[in-house]
Amino acid sequence: MTKDLRDYIRTIPDFPHEGVLFRDVTTLFGSAEGLHEAIEQTVAALIGIKVDKVAGLEARGFIMGGAVAQRLGVGFVPLRKKGKLPGKTITQDYELEYGTATLEVHDDAIEAGENVLLLDDLIATGGTAEAGIKLIEALGGKVVQSTFIIDLPDLGGQIR
Amino acid sequence: MTKDLRDYIRTIPDFPHEGVLFRDVTTLFGSAEGLHEAIEQTVAALIGIKVDKVAGLEARGFIMGGAVAQRLGVGFVPLRKKGKLPGKTITQDYELEYGTATLEVHDDAIEAGENVLLLDDLIATGGTAEAGIKLIEALGGKVVQSTFIIDLPDLGGQIR
Repeated sequence: MTKDLRDYIRTIPDFPHEGVLFRDVTTLFGSAEGLHEAIEQTVAALIGIKVDKVAGLEARGFIMGGAVAQRLGVGFVPLRKKGKLPGKTITQDYELEYGTATLEVHDDAIEAGENVLLLDDLIATGGTAEAGIKLIEALGGKVVQSTFIIDLPDLGGQIR
Repeated sequence: MTKDLRDYIRTIPDFPHEGVLFRDVTTLFGSAEGLHEAIEQTVAALIGIKVDKVAGLEARGFIMGGAVAQRLGVGFVPLRKKGKLPGKTITQDYELEYGTATLEVHDDAIEAGENVLLLDDLIATGGTAEAGIKLIEALGGKVVQSTFIIDLPDLGGQIR
C-alpha cells in the first residue's frame, strides 16, 4: 500500500520569519521508511518516461536527487546558488520575496538532447524551479518531469 | 573490478581563489557509473558495521548521503550551516581559513545509542567533519564510520 508522505512531514510555525508555516522534510528523510517511500514514489511516477539525468536544486533537492539518480541508474547534476560551482557555468536570475537570487549550472553538466528529471523538496512560487528549467533548456536538455514532495498551491507554483 | 573514483574527478585551478586546486566531484556524480561506484564503495567499506542513520554535511554531502541511506535502508540526517534548519537545534562552531562558521543539527534527528555514518565529499583540514562528529555525539549518537571521497592529506584532516 502506498504511504502518505504527509504523515512524515512536520510543520514548524514562524520559520524563517513570523507568520510562515514551514513544511519540514527533514523528518521525512530522517525516517528509513519515509525516505524510501519518497524515492520510490518519485520513480513510480516516471513509468514510461526515459530519464538521462537527474537535476536537483540546492540544497534539499540534493538529498533526493542523488538517491533517485542512483535508483534510475543515471548521473546527478546539482543546480547551485551562485559562486559554489568551480567550473565554467551558465546562470539564471530568479525573484525572491525580497530581491533576486541567481542559480548556476556547469555548462557541460547536461548534453543536448538529454531527458532531465528536475527535483526539489518543495514548490512554492515556482521561481527557483523555473530558473532550473531555463538552465537545463539553455544547455539543450529537456525537462521531462519536475517532482516536488510538497506543493503549496496557494502560492501558485504549479501554474507557471 | 573496482573502478578508481579519481578517474571521474576533475581539478579546477584557482577556485575559490588563486593558488587553490579545487577537486570537483560534480563530474563524478554526473556520471551514472561514477555515482554508482562512489555509493557502492561507501557501502562496501561498511561490511560488519551496523549503521542506523546516515548524516551528511551541507551541501555536497547531501548528494551521496540520501543515496547511501536509501541503499542501507536507514534514514538521512542533514548537518547544516546555521539558520537553515527550522526546528530546535544544537550548534557547533568550527574554524575556517578566515574566521569561524557554525554547523547545526535538529536536536531530535539522532536518538541516543544510534550508530551514525558521517559523509562528505572531501576532507581537508577536517574542521567541518569534527564539528559534525561533536554534534552527533552531543545527541548521544556514535560515529561508527566517516567516509569522504577525497582526502587532501597535506591538510591533515585524517590526523585529528
